[in-house]
Amino acid sequence: MTTIETRPNTTGASESVEKLLSALDTRQPGRSLPGPLYADPDLHELDLTLLWSRQWILVGSVAEIREPGDYFVVELGRASVIVVRDDDEQVGAFRNVCRHRGSRLLTDSHGSVGNIVCGYHSWTYGTDGRLLHAPQLRDGVDPACLGLGRVHVREVGGLIFVCLASGVPEAPADLDDVAATITPYLMPHRLDRAKVAAQIDIVEGGNWKLTMENNRECYHCEGGHPELLCTFFPTYGLTDAQIPARLRPAHDRFLLAEAELNRVCEQHSLPYALVQDLAERPVGFRIAREPLDRAGESFSRDGARMVGRLLGDLTEPRLGRCTLHTQPNGWVHLLADHAVTFTALPLAVDRTLVRTTWLVHEDAVEGVDYDLDTLTEVWRHTNEQDAAFVTQTQRGVTDPAYVPGPYTEAEQQVDDFVSWYVARMREEVAR
Amino acid sequence: MTTIETRPNTTGASESVEKLLSALDTRQPGRSLPGPLYADPDLHELDLTLLWSRQWILVGSVAEIREPGDYFVVELGRASVIVVRDDDEQVGAFRNVCRHRGSRLLTDSHGSVGNIVCGYHSWTYGTDGRLLHAPQLRDGVDPACLGLGRVHVREVGGLIFVCLASGVPEAPADLDDVAATITPYLMPHRLDRAKVAAQIDIVEGGNWKLTMENNRECYHCEGGHPELLCTFFPTYGLTDAQIPARLRPAHDRFLLAEAELNRVCEQHSLPYALVQDLAERPVGFRIAREPLDRAGESFSRDGARMVGRLLGDLTEPRLGRCTLHTQPNGWVHLLADHAVTFTALPLAVDRTLVRTTWLVHEDAVEGVDYDLDTLTEVWRHTNEQDAAFVTQTQRGVTDPAYVPGPYTEAEQQVDDFVSWYVARMREEVAR
Amino acid sequence: MTTIETRPNTTGASESVEKLLSALDTRQPGRSLPGPLYADPDLHELDLTLLWSRQWILVGSVAEIREPGDYFVVELGRASVIVVRDDDEQVGAFRNVCRHRGSRLLTDSHGSVGNIVCGYHSWTYGTDGRLLHAPQLRDGVDPACLGLGRVHVREVGGLIFVCLASGVPEAPADLDDVAATITPYLMPHRLDRAKVAAQIDIVEGGNWKLTMENNRECYHCEGGHPELLCTFFPTYGLTDAQIPARLRPAHDRFLLAEAELNRVCEQHSLPYALVQDLAERPVGFRIAREPLDRAGESFSRDGARMVGRLLGDLTEPRLGRCTLHTQPNGWVHLLADHAVTFTALPLAVDRTLVRTTWLVHEDAVEGVDYDLDTLTEVWRHTNEQDAAFVTQTQRGVTDPAYVPGPYTEAEQQVDDFVSWYVARMREEVAR
Repeated sequence: MTTIETRPNTTGASESVEKLLSALDTRQPGRSLPGPLYADPDLHELDLTLLWSRQWILVGSVAEIREPGDYFVVELGRASVIVVRDDDEQVGAFRNVCRHRGSRLLTDSHGSVGNIVCGYHSWTYGTDGRLLHAPQLRDGVDPACLGLGRVHVREVGGLIFVCLASGVPEAPADLDDVAATITPYLMPHRLDRAKVAAQIDIVEGGNWKLTMENNRECYHCEGGHPELLCTFFPTYGLTDAQIPARLRPAHDRFLLAEAELNRVCEQHSLPYALVQDLAERPVGFRIAREPLDRAGESFSRDGARMVGRLLGDLTEPRLGRCTLHTQPNGWVHLLADHAVTFTALPLAVDRTLVRTTWLVHEDAVEGVDYDLDTLTEVWRHTNEQDAAFVTQTQRGVTDPAYVPGPYTEAEQQVDDFVSWYVARMREEVAR
Repeated sequence: MTTIETRPNTTGASESVEKLLSALDTRQPGRSLPGPLYADPDLHELDLTLLWSRQWILVGSVAEIREPGDYFVVELGRASVIVVRDDDEQVGAFRNVCRHRGSRLLTDSHGSVGNIVCGYHSWTYGTDGRLLHAPQLRDGVDPACLGLGRVHVREVGGLIFVCLASGVPEAPADLDDVAATITPYLMPHRLDRAKVAAQIDIVEGGNWKLTMENNRECYHCEGGHPELLCTFFPTYGLTDAQIPARLRPAHDRFLLAEAELNRVCEQHSLPYALVQDLAERPVGFRIAREPLDRAGESFSRDGARMVGRLLGDLTEPRLGRCTLHTQPNGWVHLLADHAVTFTALPLAVDRTLVRTTWLVHEDAVEGVDYDLDTLTEVWRHTNEQDAAFVTQTQRGVTDPAYVPGPYTEAEQQVDDFVSWYVARMREEVAR
Repeated sequence: MTTIETRPNTTGASESVEKLLSALDTRQPGRSLPGPLYADPDLHELDLTLLWSRQWILVGSVAEIREPGDYFVVELGRASVIVVRDDDEQVGAFRNVCRHRGSRLLTDSHGSVGNIVCGYHSWTYGTDGRLLHAPQLRDGVDPACLGLGRVHVREVGGLIFVCLASGVPEAPADLDDVAATITPYLMPHRLDRAKVAAQIDIVEGGNWKLTMENNRECYHCEGGHPELLCTFFPTYGLTDAQIPARLRPAHDRFLLAEAELNRVCEQHSLPYALVQDLAERPVGFRIAREPLDRAGESFSRDGARMVGRLLGDLTEPRLGRCTLHTQPNGWVHLLADHAVTFTALPLAVDRTLVRTTWLVHEDAVEGVDYDLDTLTEVWRHTNEQDAAFVTQTQRGVTDPAYVPGPYTEAEQQVDDFVSWYVARMREEVAR
């Protein structure tokens, strides 16, 4: 197995770093980022090489690769990563680049293979990354040195994280702490016994940070997400003291639902407390079990469950949403009846892929236990709405007239995310 | 109200300026510009920041925003500007960027609003640019400091000019002189009592300067514009002494038509003399009332009027064309029966939007007083022909073999425009 | 006539050159090129200015311009070249840029003209490049100085090469030696008496060097080119000692076919020996007459001829393939019944045009002597397969994980091509 170093592919790297530091320095706490950090291609390149190549990235879940040979491919900037279950049922991750003349190996987004065979000259690698077969190698060339580039990979409660950092010490170590904290929340939903009901990719016309910022607040929900607001409380992110009069009725419902949810969680020994460290640590995260409005069971119009068969061995449908955020790029909702994972992946300085995956119990049968359109309806609409917001914001922050504006009380998590980004970039530059 | 400074968004700005000065230095009078000034993205960036952000730009006319709340949006490079008639019926112009997190505010090219409401978080601005409503602002944030960025705006005889310069002193002052000169030519056509009959945007595949150069001569008309030449004299730009033998019959017709037009203008007390300062002053311009061939009334196949109801209170249809050029980006034909405004707006170093707007008397009725296809026919064809010329020229000037060639006698105004551009850029760099 | 110098159109040229030299220095013999040489736009710019503007480029054959006034246009990076047969039946080549304001002159890829007339202002040039007509030139402008930029052009055995170098000394002189060597191989096929049966352009999604590398080996044929392998021996590029066991039967057939081909060539006094200097000389080339499998006559499913009328005065159909490679960009197969020329032309750092032209005897009649679908079938499929290989390789070498891998025994000519490229670029930088 081979560890391949990721190097920036650009010129004027030192100029770019100066530009980055200058932009980071002008950021004011409580305000959005300076425009170049969203719009400058050179700074995007540094996002890729300093942050995306060194952080743990949420890429999906074990439900997407259930059998040996199952794989999916994820693109992280110009890097392509194969995530595959090997013949020993272990999850591995490899660079999707042939060691011969560099051809992409797997060109489908997911599938199942016996071995990983290059389509160009038929070089053949095992699902463990070893080079098994390459005809007519010249004398002195050792196939053992030509295995696929290895990528760090971690399973946490059924979620899969990868890290492109070269060398074990460079992958953020505090994922261990985070994993210890969040695993008890995730385990009852048993993603290892779930299957993919649907997966939809959309492209948002904005920088990946705008995608993340958009996800960190519900200040835009009232005007922007009518379907989601059937069950999502518009008071998200506000403290009791900050609730405006018009949201008071919703907040009263929230308080009742929260008390009931806490009671149910206690009864079933499920953790529910908020744990959050979005701004300070390398692996910024937030997890909590929070109530849903109306029936309180799922993201449906009336709040009732949408899948007859609950996840894992759960029997109680009214578990609200256990929601996990991980920085830089993911968020997950785990409900009693299904789970949804979201990963945001940068395609260009102004384009971001958002992959949404709906998971249900492995024994749930489409058309019997659930209807696919109904299951996916809320997030299909919500994602499209968010894509429009992100696209219009990208256009605006690229305008010379853009001046970073003040976050409101409902946007504390956005502020935390932006502060985390600034701190991470400064730290990576200093390394 | 807030004035937002426009800054270049690029790195290596000083390198770009050196490249610019070097290119300007190699320009020879009487010849077209060196290739990089048409094709280099860095130099285009300087066109945007040094020229387009500091000059008065023709963006349309009051006929496009007749009622309070009517607006149109114009894109100047990466900058987007809202031109709106406010509740006091005044024309205002603002940066189309929310002061919160930067989203574009108005995303349609034109329309009518009560207030200007951001689609993202519902921040609400008046048509005078003031921030009226932003929920849950944190303590210490003053809404009075969060008005929309103001853009200089001037009405001249019903035409609307904007200037992105920050601070009043930076907008070219000599627009006042120009306005005093051209207003008497424009007023009789009463654009304030006109309405939009049609508006068509096309994209030409070339640098904005090629679009302007193409418009400054009719040397290409003989081979290129059969429809336009029904009424436009191909001798445009030539002095008596320069008329070649083949154009002598056309020139003879021109002289007769000119004498007749001058007589009619005297009779109706309409100014008609040529006033021109294309090369020397900041607001380069040219205005004159000039005859049309055949019936001499309009841009039709036979030269006869195409709209039954004449503009304003005009009663005489045979007024030729009162033609205004303003640099960097506009030209206007005012005839007795209609007017046409043209604005050229840079989309990229090699793409330019040309917006053409046909105006008729506010009481003229389509299908009764005029036929829309007939009214727009000549310029629809002519614009498409010009777009092809500009596109092929862009391809050629990007070729390493391109060498600036000599202007002919018919291209004096092109030479003037290019000299104006060189002088303006030198002056702006020196500031 | 005018010689126009080709200059790089870029800034930071010295930085780019440093980046180039650094990339060339890291290339290891026996391995593919470092990633930036395939993917960096600045280095591609240097490929265009240092190599494509100074080397002899194969652009087609005399069969494409048989009559006076016949022309074709070829794009070499941003440069466009007109290749035209003039009124004296000589082949000439000119820059496709008007000397007036730079417009492209000929916008179709091929055709026939009396004179070369600019579509913009009707400036008119003869097929010998002289400016014949330009109305209203100002005093002191000499039309004799406004001829089209001349491009070096050479006919070799009916093939046409051009060179953009300015000044005769700068065109590689060793084309003379190469021409002397290869002409006897080409002449019997009489391209001067051939005509175009078909011409197809495809765009491969990769750097031009990947297109050339792909063409220099048949290591990928077994898995990738089922149609081609009907007649093309998969042992191409391997010595006797390197033949693996599974290819032994094919090699045995090859040896028999080779002996028979050599006998036939001796009988008809046709040269057949391999002459190759791919790595060392400026005009890298390779030529040989090599056998085809099965019937041994043509690239058909069964190896039998596909055109009833043989080329030139040939009477013997079983002549295998006389194959010529020329660097940087061409390859040609001459068979008894038809010829195919291939030219690879860079469109961008990651896009390459491949133009394939099938030639048959001028008297061969489609539908009688040959079926067009049948004639073109093998290379249509093979080209599409190669385009996919090149596209996937471009994606891989752009990945930060790409590491140049080792060439196998079957890829010696790829190694030679890459070594030639490195040597040429170093030499051009040093000039």
